[in-house]
Amino acid sequence: MQAKNQARSTCPISFALEIFGDRWTLLVLRDLLLRGRRRYRELLRSEEGIATNVLADRLKRLERRGLIRKLRDEADGRQFVYAATPLAISLVPMLIEMIVWGARSDSGSDVDPAFIARFETDREGLIAEIQAEVRRSNGLA
Amino acid sequence: MQAKNQARSTCPISFALEIFGDRWTLLVLRDLLLRGRRRYRELLRSEEGIATNVLADRLKRLERRGLIRKLRDEADGRQFVYAATPLAISLVPMLIEMIVWGARSDSGSDVDPAFIARFETDREGLIAEIQAEVRRSNGLA
Repeated sequence: MQAKNQARSTCPISFALEIFGDRWTLLVLRDLLLRGRRRYRELLRSEEGIATNVLADRLKRLERRGLIRKLRDEADGRQFVYAATPLAISLVPMLIEMIVWGARSDSGSDVDPAFIARFETDREGLIAEIQAEVRRSNGLA
Repeated sequence: MQAKNQARSTCPISFALEIFGDRWTLLVLRDLLLRGRRRYRELLRSEEGIATNVLADRLKRLERRGLIRKLRDEADGRQFVYAATPLAISLVPMLIEMIVWGARSDSGSDVDPAFIARFETDREGLIAEIQAEVRRSNGLA
């Protein structure tokens, strides 16, 4: 991996890949944005089996790039929670497109048909609802 | 990288990342889908400076996963061109969302303001136009 502040180009796709161009970062963001997982242990137990050192590294990088904040858990001051920032929340439309593409392309994908149906009839409403839910769980709305 | 046919999970995001979860693959698809580059040499000279062995590896993987086809160049039978398949063309909405996210998030990104304006007023039309252009250049439409 290259130094973080040395952009390869002025292309926004390249910029995005410098943040999440790997096999794991978007799975962490999926769990934070779409599954309401906010604690390290919750993030660690995803079905893909992310290694603890990989998870710790990705969380640090996401924090450094401004996509998440590490906060003390109000329910238990010895614990931390990770909160998606507005920058991460604005990735929801891209993640939704990725889900729909994967679901349509991979017969092995397991996606609720109701989710796809909602996407097809009310994409904007679906995105807004997911984003509002993340903001609510972050105490931002 | 793991064996290609051994899925980590049934999550469509994970499936997608098994295909393009790295720093380079989506740049190759960007050049094929959005910049009309179809020859190896054209793909090699992108501003990010992809190494020739990396480009060759990504093209082979994209071909194996059904996102591109390698065809003889009709204009010069000694040369090859790479053509995006419908599966790759259906990634355009996701790529567009990534461009817009990167452009809004990174002050160093260089994106035509007319592109963003078109996205904001006519996202569906923009996507359809890009997809039609790729199909046309592939001789599929």
